[in-house]
Amino acid sequence: MTPFFVMIKCKLGQTYTVANQIADAEIASEVYSTSGDFDLLVKFYIEDGQDIGHFVSEKVHTFPGIQDTKTIITFKAF
Amino acid sequence: MTPFFVMIKCKLGQTYTVANQIADAEIASEVYSTSGDFDLLVKFYIEDGQDIGHFVSEKVHTFPGIQDTKTIITFKAF
Amino acid sequence: MTPFFVMIKCKLGQTYTVANQIADAEIASEVYSTSGDFDLLVKFYIEDGQDIGHFVSEKVHTFPGIQDTKTIITFKAF
Amino acid sequence: MTPFFVMIKCKLGQTYTVANQIADAEIASEVYSTSGDFDLLVKFYIEDGQDIGHFVSEKVHTFPGIQDTKTIITFKAF
Amino acid sequence: MTPFFVMIKCKLGQTYTVANQIADAEIASEVYSTSGDFDLLVKFYIEDGQDIGHFVSEKVHTFPGIQDTKTIITFKAF
Amino acid sequence: MTPFFVMIKCKLGQTYTVANQIADAEIASEVYSTSGDFDLLVKFYIEDGQDIGHFVSEKVHTFPGIQDTKTIITFKAF
Amino acid sequence: MTPFFVMIKCKLGQTYTVANQIADAEIASEVYSTSGDFDLLVKFYIEDGQDIGHFVSEKVHTFPGIQDTKTIITFKAF
Amino acid sequence: MTPFFVMIKCKLGQTYTVANQIADAEIASEVYSTSGDFDLLVKFYIEDGQDIGHFVSEKVHTFPGIQDTKTIITFKAF
Amino acid sequence: MTPFFVMIKCKLGQTYTVANQIADAEIASEVYSTSGDFDLLVKFYIEDGQDIGHFVSEKVHTFPGIQDTKTIITFKAF
Amino acid sequence: MTPFFVMIKCKLGQTYTVANQIADAEIASEVYSTSGDFDLLVKFYIEDGQDIGHFVSEKVHTFPGIQDTKTIITFKAF
Repeated sequence: MTPFFVMIKCKLGQTYTVANQIADAEIASEVYSTSGDFDLLVKFYIEDGQDIGHFVSEKVHTFPGIQDTKTIITFKAF
Repeated sequence: MTPFFVMIKCKLGQTYTVANQIADAEIASEVYSTSGDFDLLVKFYIEDGQDIGHFVSEKVHTFPGIQDTKTIITFKAF
Repeated sequence: MTPFFVMIKCKLGQTYTVANQIADAEIASEVYSTSGDFDLLVKFYIEDGQDIGHFVSEKVHTFPGIQDTKTIITFKAF
Repeated sequence: MTPFFVMIKCKLGQTYTVANQIADAEIASEVYSTSGDFDLLVKFYIEDGQDIGHFVSEKVHTFPGIQDTKTIITFKAF
Repeated sequence: MTPFFVMIKCKLGQTYTVANQIADAEIASEVYSTSGDFDLLVKFYIEDGQDIGHFVSEKVHTFPGIQDTKTIITFKAF
Repeated sequence: MTPFFVMIKCKLGQTYTVANQIADAEIASEVYSTSGDFDLLVKFYIEDGQDIGHFVSEKVHTFPGIQDTKTIITFKAF
Repeated sequence: MTPFFVMIKCKLGQTYTVANQIADAEIASEVYSTSGDFDLLVKFYIEDGQDIGHFVSEKVHTFPGIQDTKTIITFKAF
Repeated sequence: MTPFFVMIKCKLGQTYTVANQIADAEIASEVYSTSGDFDLLVKFYIEDGQDIGHFVSEKVHTFPGIQDTKTIITFKAF
Repeated sequence: MTPFFVMIKCKLGQTYTVANQIADAEIASEVYSTSGDFDLLVKFYIEDGQDIGHFVSEKVHTFPGIQDTKTIITFKAF
Repeated sequence: MTPFFVMIKCKLGQTYTVANQIADAEIASEVYSTSGDFDLLVKFYIEDGQDIGHFVSEKVHTFPGIQDTKTIITFKAF
């Protein structure tokens, strides 16, 4: 299993609605509300060789209240 | 304990040296090399009420090979 | 009690309406109209351990006339 | 007396040295280490009609360890 | 009297309509159409101690055809 | 005579030295220290048909203490 | 006659419609479709002392399909 | 034949629909979903002397679900 | 084997030296000099499960004449 | 023959030295000093199929006093 992170910017006032939806969907390993340019930082695990882009486009972008996302791929855990 | 994340941009060719130094220092919970604008994503835990800014300035900025850092504070884990 | 700051950009011509709304709500410690990329700088106090992200999303983002906000967390007062 | 704010970005690892210098100089009303693009947020008071630009250039820029500053003028306190 | 400047970006094709409106309102000292990121540079004078933010929000933002503005405060004339 | 403006960013702590040099050289019509991304806003007049780029490169860039400049051409005064 | 350039960003799929409109209007000296942040680079000549800002606002901004423009003034031809 | 690349940013959740449309149209040599500021990286070949700008505007911009594109011209293959 | 791309910005005048070095090292699948914000676009193949970050840091960053790089991970080929 | 443009940013005070060097070298079709983010706009012609990237790296980047350049490729003249 490979971890990757998605930073999510939500529409004004929607941060906690989006965070609860993602937590309820039980697809994420960790969900944090955060300071900075994005409102949420979410950690996912995916099977090796699975398509991260497809996962984000189909499973994450589809929650209402999301304005923009940025995906961070991990290469190695130290 | 409260988690927070530090994204680290390293000098050219120094990414893995910095990552190994941080891993060896045993101050971080997770250390990943990553794609994107920064080279490393590191997760730390700090005692509630401890000073995150002081920790980053004294414990993280002092590793040689670091060029810039950005700290992400977490407000809540869902 | 921990202080934090929220910089607020308002829709054109709405700065003083938003500022008065925040002042009237008596949730802020200090409210200033300012020069620069944002129109207002507001200082809030929150109980230690309270969720700043939730506060901003529920109590600040809900004033009409706000276009964007940026939250500045304080680590330590010198 | 008119308040204004200066956000300060310090050289790597110098944040707390700069903050202590400013606090010791007793020229500031409040000094915070902060998250975000800058490391410190400092509030100053100046006599009405005094020159803020001159104050920042002569009294703030001269602390060693500062890399960049951004001044926020307040127009009105609500 | 203290001078300050407002740089104005207009909607496509509205620059000269906005400039003429401001000139006709006789609230500005100088109005120029300009090259660069903004379309107009306007110089205003305000009584010492008057609220520049309120003036811009009430007197400038209200002209139709304006898309964005940036205010430049002057500290001292040499 | 055609007016144009030059916004000047100075090296840390050099703003007032640069401003005084420009004022003493008596080549500018108005010199202001300012808030914002630049430290000084200077207004010059040049004979119609004279080369503004040459003037800035030879007469303005040569003052020590300047870090960067941005020139704003005026098209029309209203 | 003084040359100046306008870089034009068009709405998706409208580049060649806009380019043909400008070419047909016979107001430009040269019209190129280009790589980079803008889609078109257009060279105009204007009588000395004529108002470039007015020309761009009235003659260029009015073509449908334009999203944004940036004007480059020339000071001297070498 | 000369290769060139187009980076494509899609509307939220549309990445794989757009990618499949481009693949089905059989106009591209390679189509990848990618990490980073854009969602897709597509490689096209065009006859020497053919107009790349026209190709992108007519053949690529017309797929529904595209938000923005950036074209990378190749000068030489090593 | 998984393809990924590295965009490379070189020091002034060093683009073709860097490109030839990479081509001679026979580690890349395709090397192009390009227009845009970067000077070179290079395609590499790596064994599934190999560490892309380590490869870039050890094998690419070490060529003299490189100023900055940006890595684009591919998720799926259509 | 295909035209392309290079926008050049020069070191402070070097604009006219660089422009004269390029004009004297007789490799450019037109050389202008300009307003905006760059100091010079230069138009070159190159034989069809010649390598623009190589030309810029070898013939343009080598003039002393240049700080940065941006190349604009033309696709079609209307």
